[in-house]
Amino acid sequence: QHEFTLNDQLAVNALRFMSIDMIENAKSGHPGSPIGMAPLAYTLWEKFLNFNPDDPQWINRDRFVLSGGHCSALLYSLLHFNGFNVSLDDIKHFRKLGSKTPGHPEYQLTPGVDASTGPLGQGFAMAVGMAMAERHLAVQYNEPGYPLFDHYTYSIVGDGDLMEGVAEESINLAGKNRLGRLIVLYDSNDVTLDGPLNLSTNENAAARFKAAHWDYQLVEDGTDLDAIAQAIRNARQTDQPSLIEVKTIIGFNTPDEGTSKVHGSPLGDHNVAITRENYGWPYAPFEYPTAVYEQFAQYAGAKEEKYQAWQKLYEGYQQKYPAAAHQLEQKYLDTAHLASHHQVGDQVSTRVANAETLQDLAAANPQLWGGSADLFSSNKTNLKGDQVFKPSNYGGRNIYFGVREFAMAAAVNGINLHGGSSAYCSTFMVFSDYLKSAIRLAALQHLPSVFIFTHDSLAVGEDGPTHEPVEQLAMLQTIPNVQVFRPADANEVVRMWKIIAQTNDRPSVIIASRQNLPVLKETINADVSRGAYVAADAANGQPAGIIMATGSELSLALAAKQQLATQHGIEVRVVSMPSMERFNQQTAEYRERVLPHNVRARLAVEMASPALWGQYVGLDGDVLGVDEFGMSGNGSQVAAQYGFTSENVVQRFLSVLRKG
Amino acid sequence: QHEFTLNDQLAVNALRFMSIDMIENAKSGHPGSPIGMAPLAYTLWEKFLNFNPDDPQWINRDRFVLSGGHCSALLYSLLHFNGFNVSLDDIKHFRKLGSKTPGHPEYQLTPGVDASTGPLGQGFAMAVGMAMAERHLAVQYNEPGYPLFDHYTYSIVGDGDLMEGVAEESINLAGKNRLGRLIVLYDSNDVTLDGPLNLSTNENAAARFKAAHWDYQLVEDGTDLDAIAQAIRNARQTDQPSLIEVKTIIGFNTPDEGTSKVHGSPLGDHNVAITRENYGWPYAPFEYPTAVYEQFAQYAGAKEEKYQAWQKLYEGYQQKYPAAAHQLEQKYLDTAHLASHHQVGDQVSTRVANAETLQDLAAANPQLWGGSADLFSSNKTNLKGDQVFKPSNYGGRNIYFGVREFAMAAAVNGINLHGGSSAYCSTFMVFSDYLKSAIRLAALQHLPSVFIFTHDSLAVGEDGPTHEPVEQLAMLQTIPNVQVFRPADANEVVRMWKIIAQTNDRPSVIIASRQNLPVLKETINADVSRGAYVAADAANGQPAGIIMATGSELSLALAAKQQLATQHGIEVRVVSMPSMERFNQQTAEYRERVLPHNVRARLAVEMASPALWGQYVGLDGDVLGVDEFGMSGNGSQVAAQYGFTSENVVQRFLSVLRKG
Repeated sequence: QHEFTLNDQLAVNALRFMSIDMIENAKSGHPGSPIGMAPLAYTLWEKFLNFNPDDPQWINRDRFVLSGGHCSALLYSLLHFNGFNVSLDDIKHFRKLGSKTPGHPEYQLTPGVDASTGPLGQGFAMAVGMAMAERHLAVQYNEPGYPLFDHYTYSIVGDGDLMEGVAEESINLAGKNRLGRLIVLYDSNDVTLDGPLNLSTNENAAARFKAAHWDYQLVEDGTDLDAIAQAIRNARQTDQPSLIEVKTIIGFNTPDEGTSKVHGSPLGDHNVAITRENYGWPYAPFEYPTAVYEQFAQYAGAKEEKYQAWQKLYEGYQQKYPAAAHQLEQKYLDTAHLASHHQVGDQVSTRVANAETLQDLAAANPQLWGGSADLFSSNKTNLKGDQVFKPSNYGGRNIYFGVREFAMAAAVNGINLHGGSSAYCSTFMVFSDYLKSAIRLAALQHLPSVFIFTHDSLAVGEDGPTHEPVEQLAMLQTIPNVQVFRPADANEVVRMWKIIAQTNDRPSVIIASRQNLPVLKETINADVSRGAYVAADAANGQPAGIIMATGSELSLALAAKQQLATQHGIEVRVVSMPSMERFNQQTAEYRERVLPHNVRARLAVEMASPALWGQYVGLDGDVLGVDEFGMSGNGSQVAAQYGFTSENVVQRFLSVLRKG
Repeated sequence: QHEFTLNDQLAVNALRFMSIDMIENAKSGHPGSPIGMAPLAYTLWEKFLNFNPDDPQWINRDRFVLSGGHCSALLYSLLHFNGFNVSLDDIKHFRKLGSKTPGHPEYQLTPGVDASTGPLGQGFAMAVGMAMAERHLAVQYNEPGYPLFDHYTYSIVGDGDLMEGVAEESINLAGKNRLGRLIVLYDSNDVTLDGPLNLSTNENAAARFKAAHWDYQLVEDGTDLDAIAQAIRNARQTDQPSLIEVKTIIGFNTPDEGTSKVHGSPLGDHNVAITRENYGWPYAPFEYPTAVYEQFAQYAGAKEEKYQAWQKLYEGYQQKYPAAAHQLEQKYLDTAHLASHHQVGDQVSTRVANAETLQDLAAANPQLWGGSADLFSSNKTNLKGDQVFKPSNYGGRNIYFGVREFAMAAAVNGINLHGGSSAYCSTFMVFSDYLKSAIRLAALQHLPSVFIFTHDSLAVGEDGPTHEPVEQLAMLQTIPNVQVFRPADANEVVRMWKIIAQTNDRPSVIIASRQNLPVLKETINADVSRGAYVAADAANGQPAGIIMATGSELSLALAAKQQLATQHGIEVRVVSMPSMERFNQQTAEYRERVLPHNVRARLAVEMASPALWGQYVGLDGDVLGVDEFGMSGNGSQVAAQYGFTSENVVQRFLSVLRKG
């Protein structure tokens, strides 16, 4: 007894031909995989996936991540036929400038897209984060008779996805956390862009996933809707994460089926014509019979019922548990009680100051949680008195991500995509290299993920150049739509967190020192929110020049200012710039007030690549930065070796003055 | 019958205590793993590893990569006792500024260190590259009776290494390529920095490696030298890569053995005293009995014999195969025959121009090989007429790395660390994010790895923001000791390769366009080697300003110059800057010649983050760059949308003039 009908097949073919039509029309796109995986996507979406096209952000919807974002045409077809706000006109504008149907799916741009995907492997990792969020929220919010959170997270991944290291890390992260509501369908077509899969891999997927304690099923015929449905049904029963390997044929029923020729280019008129014949699809491009729409509509009722039932459930919940419901609906973190733990003159590293403020925030905001890539004890980002997130205790707020920086960051993006909580992650700053692409995806998706990087400069010392950041600060600061903070002391740390807590449209990056730094009087009223401010001005109000600094170098700059005044009778202004990005967004008037155009004797001091400072010091200024790798040795000695002493700051500034 | 004696145990303990002594003396370091893994490292080094301490770069030596570089104390102890140029005084200067014994092992700084390690997982990946190189060179050079290349590559990895995505990618890369001479010893102590391993992982290592077609063995007692030796012996017999999981106890016989307390800090006086008692080690710090040195010396003879035998073999080889021997000893690539394939006015993308030149180079230089992360057909970096590198044909020069960018780049570093050939790799520029840390390690190790990144800007077009680089150029340019090239056309491509081919002390990064670009007359004599040059000067010799550009924007700048002259009567200079790094290394005199200090009306045009251009345009100039993410659409339309038209360049320059 088959549960699918001929009309289901018709609908599957409609997904295939809408994908083909839009790619031909755009003269650009990836037809092969949409054609091959249409049956499995159809089965998943119509028989299982809970969603409401009129409320695409419904928090207990099933999540769906198309990890191979190049198959976007299929996703847009699904959205269109399922009644999301993606019109036939939108479909016709696939890959056109300003359309709702870009080359790869973009979160927030297109209703129904749960994650921006394209960079392979990261979709998988974000799905893992979503599944973690669901379990965490279920513990935090569900009450007897009120299962607010009980959705599944589904992802379709391809051969390319699974070769990526971030996917491999995600397999283990999901397996360790026994995410039973994570169901991954593997579009296993044995072809990649460059040809047969066996040119580059021979990994046994079944064995590999089982090694990480996943449930594994094989569907040998990827066109068999019943078999696919049965496998998904089975997967929903296990308490392990599930991989369903579905053998498909890329570009099935096209003249070049089963080869990489159908991967990344339109089929072309000739082959499209043959494909229409092969499928018995008589319709013109962008013409889809009413029966198709009716077929999709058949599944809408059940989805709508589930949605309405949940809404009713939530209304009851709001009445019975108003505080929890209120908590769930918070958009920002409460920062009312934040204050520095330190007095001027105290010595405290910004990683410890950051930990103290994080702790205070966490106490007032149960929605805050996060973790570290096996560096809790160095990053100091574990929430004290809180517990470990694990299968026996999904309510725990400390996530042991393991030495998996990339999956950690992508999973945190997944948690923040899910909504309902706020997540951060942490590692050494030099290892921001390992996860950089995930920060980019956070920025692209406007997610408020928080990335905490400690051990921020050559002052790391003994661990040497492999562990001493040089260029990472510039790497992070140049990512669009990211706010990077390198606070100078505990005062700036508190003010930084007040901004981060109120940010919900972009990621924040925190750069913190390993070594102790003095708590300064000049930072008590730090205008961190403007990105840069005058920390100490010329005593006479007429600065002969400006010394700019961030982080651990602010106290150096202030010491140099003192020496210039007392030993050389030169009065300078010191500008603290904890966030270049925020400063660059200020009005021209404010920027002029901090950095007057006609004061050209400028020196920037930062223990990092000098490359970005040119925009502030100009052709007449100078930068005391680091443009080579560090060394192993005592941190202070290393810093001195590279010129980071107040005496050298004075000399460099005097050179600028003489030059100018 | 045991093959090891009490003196072997004494020598193992000497490794432990030298590690302890140097860490206590430095007051910094990681004692736990050296103590735990000393038996396996000893067994490997003394019974199996072929090397000559007097010729640490011997090309057929067995390679050894300590992937967990934080265990450096153990490696320095091995080097010292095995007669490398690492003295007791060097040992006493562990982690001190300027010493030969830095916190993590550094290639070229310390004789006998085969790779710089510390960033976890990459040591493993570099070992995979070395094993690939060995097989490739064996096919290229070995002759009947002359097995020039037949060495093994060994690596010791830890629990942390194996969690990294780059390690996971490497497992599959090695398995697919059936690298039988790769033997990895897994120091399996079930503890990481943050605590018990099971906080973050429960992967079954045996199953995981077998899924990738590795040979797997378990040594249950990591202090059993005989069992370790037998496992290594077995591993050498298989034609699969081998993992030997050796169960060890971190900080074995110290008071805190088996816990993370002994991972990352000195034991301290009290615990060291107890540990001395536990081991019955009566010697003072830095005192090691003569019997220890004698014991290590016992193994030196056999190693020396093998070395001498190889030298003799090579002498015979040089006589019988002088051309091959000559080839093997080449330090640079031959560029005598390189020339552009194009005429002024031709339209050709720099990725295609790059491919043509790469092809020419490969024809003249059999030592050149490389691959792509499943983007050969887009990067165009496959060597035409050449074959695939694979177990049945290790002589193939086209490496199908799979969608494993990070392992690809790290393996290419391993190939170049090995020596005897020159390797490159390639992917889309936006995915340089995935492998950035490997470029850093190439730079830190002074390796001439070549990274080819195509699809270099918003002009990628339809694939949209996930595939359009913005900040990647700045990310790459700020890594110390890297030369980044963004050539403007086929002419600059040829000149770029002449420089790269003659570079052997740092990595090169090639940034190439997807889209066609005109071949320019202004680039015929391009001084790419100086990083920037005057492509077209003011007709009157008195430029009213300077427009700087790179890559696809050079032709825009030239068009704007023309329009400024004919429509506005304004004469400007156009400067092409294919390599900021090389330009910044030129004399002040040359830089002044190209960018005269008093010409302040300056505009930079580059379809990438503007952040680095401040150093050239100063406070009075402007940058037409991109500081937000791109869009999906036709490439030219996207570029125009972001202001990259000659008309807009003209307007932006006129604004600068008015402002100034």
